[in-house]
Amino acid sequence: MSRKPNLAVVGATGAVGTVMLGLLSSREDVWGEIRLIASPRSAGRRLTVRGEEVEVVALSEEAFDGIDVAMFDAPDEVSAQWAPIAAAKGVVVVDNSGAFRMDPDVPLVVPEVNAPAARFRPRGIIANPNCTTLTMMCGLAALHAEYGLRELVVASYQAASGAGQSGVDALRDQLKQVAGTGVGEQTCDLRAVITDNGPFPAPLALNAVPWAGSAAADGWSSEELKVRNESRKILGLPDLKVSATCVRIPVITAHSLAVHAVFEREVSQEHAQDILREAPGVVLYDNPAAGEFPTPNDVVGTDPTWVGRVRRSLDDPNALDLFLCGDNLRKGAALNTAQIAELVAAELGG
Amino acid sequence: MSRKPNLAVVGATGAVGTVMLGLLSSREDVWGEIRLIASPRSAGRRLTVRGEEVEVVALSEEAFDGIDVAMFDAPDEVSAQWAPIAAAKGVVVVDNSGAFRMDPDVPLVVPEVNAPAARFRPRGIIANPNCTTLTMMCGLAALHAEYGLRELVVASYQAASGAGQSGVDALRDQLKQVAGTGVGEQTCDLRAVITDNGPFPAPLALNAVPWAGSAAADGWSSEELKVRNESRKILGLPDLKVSATCVRIPVITAHSLAVHAVFEREVSQEHAQDILREAPGVVLYDNPAAGEFPTPNDVVGTDPTWVGRVRRSLDDPNALDLFLCGDNLRKGAALNTAQIAELVAAELGG
Ligand SMILES: NC(=O)c1ccc[n+]([C@@H]2O[C@H](COP(=O)([O-])OP(=O)(O)OC[C@H]3O[C@@H](n4cnc5c(N)ncnc54)[C@H](OP(=O)(O)O)[C@@H]3O)[C@@H](O)[C@H]2O)c1
Ligand SMILES: NC(=O)c1ccc[n+]([C@@H]2O[C@H](COP(=O)([O-])OP(=O)(O)OC[C@H]3O[C@@H](n4cnc5c(N)ncnc54)[C@H](OP(=O)(O)O)[C@@H]3O)[C@@H](O)[C@H]2O)c1
Repeated sequence: MSRKPNLAVVGATGAVGTVMLGLLSSREDVWGEIRLIASPRSAGRRLTVRGEEVEVVALSEEAFDGIDVAMFDAPDEVSAQWAPIAAAKGVVVVDNSGAFRMDPDVPLVVPEVNAPAARFRPRGIIANPNCTTLTMMCGLAALHAEYGLRELVVASYQAASGAGQSGVDALRDQLKQVAGTGVGEQTCDLRAVITDNGPFPAPLALNAVPWAGSAAADGWSSEELKVRNESRKILGLPDLKVSATCVRIPVITAHSLAVHAVFEREVSQEHAQDILREAPGVVLYDNPAAGEFPTPNDVVGTDPTWVGRVRRSLDDPNALDLFLCGDNLRKGAALNTAQIAELVAAELGG
Repeated sequence: MSRKPNLAVVGATGAVGTVMLGLLSSREDVWGEIRLIASPRSAGRRLTVRGEEVEVVALSEEAFDGIDVAMFDAPDEVSAQWAPIAAAKGVVVVDNSGAFRMDPDVPLVVPEVNAPAARFRPRGIIANPNCTTLTMMCGLAALHAEYGLRELVVASYQAASGAGQSGVDALRDQLKQVAGTGVGEQTCDLRAVITDNGPFPAPLALNAVPWAGSAAADGWSSEELKVRNESRKILGLPDLKVSATCVRIPVITAHSLAVHAVFEREVSQEHAQDILREAPGVVLYDNPAAGEFPTPNDVVGTDPTWVGRVRRSLDDPNALDLFLCGDNLRKGAALNTAQIAELVAAELGG
């Protein structure tokens, strides 16, 4: 290809799409045209990307005319229906939804971990992992390369924006309703003050909600199974033992994870810290006595995943405990998608 | 003893003390005099207990004259200095601080789990466990009796009131400061809006803070070591493997825990649910597809610990994953202390 490839962003008006437009405006510009696509509701809206106003067009087969690469930052059903239509027109699709991640003919890619997998895409579709899984992949892949990963126990602290813009709006409304009330005292009930849970199954302000996604088998949530299945696929470890408990907390953006990781070989705290310090896509921030540990607020708007609280288990020389934070809208979604699309652009260009 | 024993409450004005006065007013009344003690700052204040106003007296040796049982709901240093003074006067001390919990001559008691241990108290002191540990003890002890506990991986979601009244005040102030701002968006930093962290090492509103307590060895926090050491002592399992990551979240009251528990014997989801349904001090609330899982807000002001999200590990037939919530000021502190003191009252009475 002698020209720069043309890009479409499906879902340009959403929580992930909005961050994507910012990324496309600030990263090295490898694209020819950038076309913005959303539902008919948004057609005609003008959004800014690369400093220029671009009019949003409604999703249709024609919307992919002349496009080389399409990012899908839209709901699962939209991807499930439309990604194959775009792919049939020869467009390489990078899909951020859950529709294709476990399809054996669709690679699931984290560029720092398994970039070569992006070249094998029989369906013309590459999948972007779930944001919760993505928060730990760069750090764990680096530790796995050294120690051999055997088992993960994960507890998540997930932000409202993981449920899209409606999650952010709901939490902000709820916060205004509870600020200044006695909620959380023995005498005042959140459910009496908060009238709208938004996309969550319980009030989120001043609360923790141990349920994300939908019901899968045997009491597990779909989000918890994604953490297990996607980690196995990305790391190429089909027998990795994974137990996750996914919990939403009242944070706007940035997911956090407490991870207990068991390895084949004995670990040391210092050497693990050295590995994480050098790992691509990772920042080690780990001196708690000096107030240095990652918190969601500190990482919002940054690209890497931040790792701190690195400890060797006191009772198992092969186990590490970690706390990781990452911006679920950036590395957890838009950034990783942009990185994959840039891999494809380089491949098409070469 | 032919009369009802006399009780002193040291720290009656604090977060735990305030809940204690409510409990003493609502539980079966086994006490003669109830004397309220705090720092000289509070001497002369009048507080209500059992429907009557009682004047707070300053802590002193004489304040224990005529007292049979003293509850200490005061800072570690106050207990460390004054509990032995009270005990030397023949008072049985039930201490809620961390000063004596790991002393081999001080029993660490959860009445539903190890009530008989309260009778062996060579120093005249009985210790009440840390609130984080207490949130899981009733549930885990019941499962241990059936399956034999081998290992725990714990991630906590701890409330502001675990850091006392100053923690509650700080979170409420911070919430007022952030409601209506853009905090948590890519462009707005919490640290620019929040001027006072209160007792926490980072802003707590719209954030998660993976650090509680002080620095212990090798990157562990004192709170994380308490979970390990106190669980071992209460359950009588000196070799129990325990890894905990303790995290504060923006909730006023009620701690939550995600627990991965590995047992000697194979578990089943249904049988584990049956055990928890019958366990003393525990409520099973576990039908997530119908919106039934414990959240901190739902359990504030209740006595039991609530358990939900009971799942058998998909990769280990001997492991269960659970989510537990309990009111850190009730079962996590005041209630358990009151229960222990009532055991002593019954013993003195008999
Ligand atoms: N939020 C995260 O942390 C995160 C992380 C990883 C992956 N993801 C995934 O990324 C995708 C987008 O998530 P989000 O959080 O950005 O959601 P969102 O805020 O709800 O945005 C949804 C986007 O999809 C568009 N859309 C909806 N229905 C459509 C239709 N029928 N035809 C065309 N466009 C349609 C919307 O356009 P209108 O404005 O016109 O309705 C909007 O641009 C989802 O699959 C999500 O699971 C999200
Ligand atoms: N909060 C929890 O979830 C929780 C759970 C388990 C255990 N605990 C433990 O329970 C104890 C009390 O915690 P809290 O949260 O109630 O703390 P808090 O709200 O700070 O209250 C402290 C209490 O101790 C009194 N006090 C302080 N210095 C004193 C002194 N020199 N002499 C006499 N009294 C003094 C205070 O009286 P003034 O009002 O006069 O200062 C107040 O009544 C601590 O050891 C804590 O670790 C707390």
